[in-house]
Amino acid sequence: MYYVDLNSDLGESFGNYTIGMDREILKYVSSANVACGWHAGDPMVMAETVAMAREYKTAVGAHPGFPDLMGFGRRNMNVTPEEAKAYVKYQLGALMAFTGSLGMKLQHVKPHGALYNMAAVDEKLARAMCEAVYEVDKDIIFMGLAGSQMVKAAEETGLKAASEVFADRAYNDDGTLVSRKLPGAVIKDEELAIRRVVRMVKEGTVETISGHEIAIRADSICVHGDNPKALEFVKNIREALAAEGVEVRSLAER
Amino acid sequence: MYYVDLNSDLGESFGNYTIGMDREILKYVSSANVACGWHAGDPMVMAETVAMAREYKTAVGAHPGFPDLMGFGRRNMNVTPEEAKAYVKYQLGALMAFTGSLGMKLQHVKPHGALYNMAAVDEKLARAMCEAVYEVDKDIIFMGLAGSQMVKAAEETGLKAASEVFADRAYNDDGTLVSRKLPGAVIKDEELAIRRVVRMVKEGTVETISGHEIAIRADSICVHGDNPKALEFVKNIREALAAEGVEVRSLAER
Amino acid sequence: MYYVDLNSDLGESFGNYTIGMDREILKYVSSANVACGWHAGDPMVMAETVAMAREYKTAVGAHPGFPDLMGFGRRNMNVTPEEAKAYVKYQLGALMAFTGSLGMKLQHVKPHGALYNMAAVDEKLARAMCEAVYEVDKDIIFMGLAGSQMVKAAEETGLKAASEVFADRAYNDDGTLVSRKLPGAVIKDEELAIRRVVRMVKEGTVETISGHEIAIRADSICVHGDNPKALEFVKNIREALAAEGVEVRSLAER
Amino acid sequence: MYYVDLNSDLGESFGNYTIGMDREILKYVSSANVACGWHAGDPMVMAETVAMAREYKTAVGAHPGFPDLMGFGRRNMNVTPEEAKAYVKYQLGALMAFTGSLGMKLQHVKPHGALYNMAAVDEKLARAMCEAVYEVDKDIIFMGLAGSQMVKAAEETGLKAASEVFADRAYNDDGTLVSRKLPGAVIKDEELAIRRVVRMVKEGTVETISGHEIAIRADSICVHGDNPKALEFVKNIREALAAEGVEVRSLAER
Repeated sequence: MYYVDLNSDLGESFGNYTIGMDREILKYVSSANVACGWHAGDPMVMAETVAMAREYKTAVGAHPGFPDLMGFGRRNMNVTPEEAKAYVKYQLGALMAFTGSLGMKLQHVKPHGALYNMAAVDEKLARAMCEAVYEVDKDIIFMGLAGSQMVKAAEETGLKAASEVFADRAYNDDGTLVSRKLPGAVIKDEELAIRRVVRMVKEGTVETISGHEIAIRADSICVHGDNPKALEFVKNIREALAAEGVEVRSLAER
Repeated sequence: MYYVDLNSDLGESFGNYTIGMDREILKYVSSANVACGWHAGDPMVMAETVAMAREYKTAVGAHPGFPDLMGFGRRNMNVTPEEAKAYVKYQLGALMAFTGSLGMKLQHVKPHGALYNMAAVDEKLARAMCEAVYEVDKDIIFMGLAGSQMVKAAEETGLKAASEVFADRAYNDDGTLVSRKLPGAVIKDEELAIRRVVRMVKEGTVETISGHEIAIRADSICVHGDNPKALEFVKNIREALAAEGVEVRSLAER
Repeated sequence: MYYVDLNSDLGESFGNYTIGMDREILKYVSSANVACGWHAGDPMVMAETVAMAREYKTAVGAHPGFPDLMGFGRRNMNVTPEEAKAYVKYQLGALMAFTGSLGMKLQHVKPHGALYNMAAVDEKLARAMCEAVYEVDKDIIFMGLAGSQMVKAAEETGLKAASEVFADRAYNDDGTLVSRKLPGAVIKDEELAIRRVVRMVKEGTVETISGHEIAIRADSICVHGDNPKALEFVKNIREALAAEGVEVRSLAER
Repeated sequence: MYYVDLNSDLGESFGNYTIGMDREILKYVSSANVACGWHAGDPMVMAETVAMAREYKTAVGAHPGFPDLMGFGRRNMNVTPEEAKAYVKYQLGALMAFTGSLGMKLQHVKPHGALYNMAAVDEKLARAMCEAVYEVDKDIIFMGLAGSQMVKAAEETGLKAASEVFADRAYNDDGTLVSRKLPGAVIKDEELAIRRVVRMVKEGTVETISGHEIAIRADSICVHGDNPKALEFVKNIREALAAEGVEVRSLAER
């Protein structure tokens, strides 16, 4: 029996600003990465998002980011590992107040945007964030890019690690994602993307942009739900996975 | 045997800005109200303040405030009870990540500045904040102005309430504080202030600005530690309390 | 010959968050109130909004608000007149850098949300904001609620004042707006709303919620452009005004 | 006749947080770099700082920084040149509202912290910021590290450039500053620092850390005023300059 987690970023609205189709996408994913008020989200949005996730029995994780609302947490910031550690603790704890209020356990932590990208290749940064999670609750799963410093740091810290893969992105021979600035970085052929995902989950391999086959671990697939087309794609992935005998199951249910 | 808690606001530094004599005052108080990053404080300061409190065995409470760093949380903001509830949960949870990391239990929550003053007289606001605390952890103590809506709301919500008194402030006949804008609002005679405190603790009464005697409950005395003179006053209060047979004991030790 | 200004709030997007149909509404209004980065807007949005306004030859004004992005500047904040003065100067100057860069003159200042509502009835607050504008450039027009403290303060300060009216709102006998919490506060009958506007402009009167007729000065009509229906309403107002011989003209063209 | 400008960063207090000895240092410098509310400063502080500078006849410049109050603008942020351009315009304009209110002309712009360091070596970033200044007012002087991309970009843009030197820092052979992480980066011998400054001003040369002599242009010397020792050093520099026949003169007086 095969199974995989589907995760999506949610709760990214802020004050008067509403984005995302959270209620729709919650029906199709098994894990929700909820913004914690720094790069997106606010306490009212967090409360509402966690309550919605509970309604759909979707597992909740924290999605901490840089203190950069104006840049949506997508701009690299030269923080120290100590700062990253404190920032993750703060955001993680803030979200836990909302999950705890509803009797829910926080399932995972997945860093957002630039923090994710920086930690994927920065051992110290990745380690600091894993220590933050471990010190708060060592049963929380740390989700990071498959094969990256984040997964390595999680394991070394003593946390359960979840390897994340991307359906619509090309991979380099070393397992890193092809930069969006390069041609071929994004897989636009939806059927191809789905075939690649199925293969990553069932065979643990992916064909790189140079045509080689490499090993890859796929505990969770990142999907988006901010527009109708993305939502349709998620439905199609779910159907294809089911047809292939792959069950969608949250990380905690493994 | 008499006892009372001494509390002080700490962890109010922010980024490059350092204020307060936190390490000094921590030696003399039994409870620290730690700012949670909204009106003051940041994650690095929170981590350091909680670690210091642990070192001095001082109980830690959350000190949530308005999202108004520029105004230090001292300006009334017309938030809804639902917003106040979410804001308190968020800040409370954020601090709990730091206390939990060190194996400490959060002892109490005391709202800051304008949020405190508004909730003292606004039943719905007070209730919303107490519900926030109750939902996160019903064993956390809610500290508010003695005789105010905060204490009433805490009791009605099912929380343990702690009544706070002020050594250096005059009281009206209805138990509210005399506005700082009025003459006589602040007790400048240090010996008189100490005598008043001792009486509040031992006899449960205070003489109001009009000369009447009213009942007042003093679970905790608010003291300041942001300048050497304030620190000296705290030492004098402790000595006077000891001489009068009043032990300084944190709220959780009652 | 009759004429009136049509104004709308624009540039309210922020970072990754986009709201409003700015490009559409700019074709129909004569004055744009551009958010200045505090309650909404950011420097990139300001630059783009001012450039668009220039393209459509729409006059630009500053729309300063409270430092409350999370509340979209709609929550009363207890600032001092001195703070309000400094806040208006700051935001006004920030926007002038963008208008000045394109060789445009800032036409007006209209406070936003809670700052507008508070200044309408608070003489000192209104005065402080008018002084801010006067000291920066005494040729800038100050727009406020018709008959309010803002208009009075502008005139006393030596600024040109513009009286703003609302097409879809009921008025009390004293010229203030009926609170949105009361029944009948919003005029939902579009034709009635348009007839009222035309009468305010041509006859300088409006029928209050109690059925009396009062004098009202209508230099500018506030319209919204954040949804297709609002946009349609603006087109209908323009047509009705034209049919009635009322020309839409910016404040500076009077 | 020789002359040079002495500049210092001021107006870095924020809300309840006060830092710097602004009133003291203003007596000794000819140019004040005033924080604009992003990495430090707020509108009330800006108003007060500009008024103080006027009192002491010190020229005022804008000191724009990253939107990172928590990091005091000292952390690199991966902004685009377009963002940097808009951010500089915004902050520049905001400060000009305060200088304009007092009838003062803004003399210069000097980027702060990480923005300064990044622009020193990033041609596009430097160019974008110079364009921002040029478009707002082409008579404003752009101050940057002597020999850096900032000075080059200012000249190419058509702005007057001011080359800044540091009294207490060692230089590499290519004219860049020796990293603070390396030994010898900071000149701790005060007399040596003063001799180096005098030589930079009068001879246009400096001895590098490797012992070579290179050409350097010194239009302005950066000094600090945040502690009594720094203040004393500024007085000593002024005395030494006077004894050597070098007059302290603001950039605009050249």
